[in-house]
Amino acid sequence: MIIRPLSKVPSARVEMEGVKGAFRQVPIGRAEGTPHFSVRVFTLEPAGHTPYHAHESEHVNYIISGSGFLVDEKGNEHPITRGDFCLVSPWEKHQFKNDSPEHDLVFICAVMKEFE
Amino acid sequence: MIIRPLSKVPSARVEMEGVKGAFRQVPIGRAEGTPHFSVRVFTLEPAGHTPYHAHESEHVNYIISGSGFLVDEKGNEHPITRGDFCLVSPWEKHQFKNDSPEHDLVFICAVMKEFE
Repeated sequence: MIIRPLSKVPSARVEMEGVKGAFRQVPIGRAEGTPHFSVRVFTLEPAGHTPYHAHESEHVNYIISGSGFLVDEKGNEHPITRGDFCLVSPWEKHQFKNDSPEHDLVFICAVMKEFE
Repeated sequence: MIIRPLSKVPSARVEMEGVKGAFRQVPIGRAEGTPHFSVRVFTLEPAGHTPYHAHESEHVNYIISGSGFLVDEKGNEHPITRGDFCLVSPWEKHQFKNDSPEHDLVFICAVMKEFE
């Protein structure tokens, strides 16, 4: 049994093409011996975003705080806010964007541990 | 791509031996075509609790709001509060308890979809 406050999980800037102002934490992952899936938390600074990309792994998301947009494969922006759950299917092009000039957008992004 | 506010996900009382004041929602699950894992949300009323039990599936948890205890297999109570992530291993005996006389304890409990 593991209990980890998010505030005590190390945070690292995401260095990847197409990313702006993003930080990553892994509260539950391979290092914790997760049996099947890993839980990462991304923090997007104001005007920050993830890459507009697609990949083999699905995403299961929960918006912890803030608001923004989840961009779909047609480029349409869907508003997301605290309390929303999202499912991004495998190979579905997507992007998370923070639309706030002031607040961070913080969200859970769970994946199968092979894609941690 | 699916976006579901938790507030719009139907809630059902959990009817199971050893449970008190518990409600269950499934924002992302088999009905949504989840590829691998299902995300349930449990709400425990004041003094509510889940069963003190063990099962094949692991739990990956995030405490959305409130506070309480996660009981381990020796019966020790570990405090949990908003912002905490938990991992309960397969066959590890455990129980979630709400210790508040006023507030609900609301938490994500993700499992492999076979155990939804």
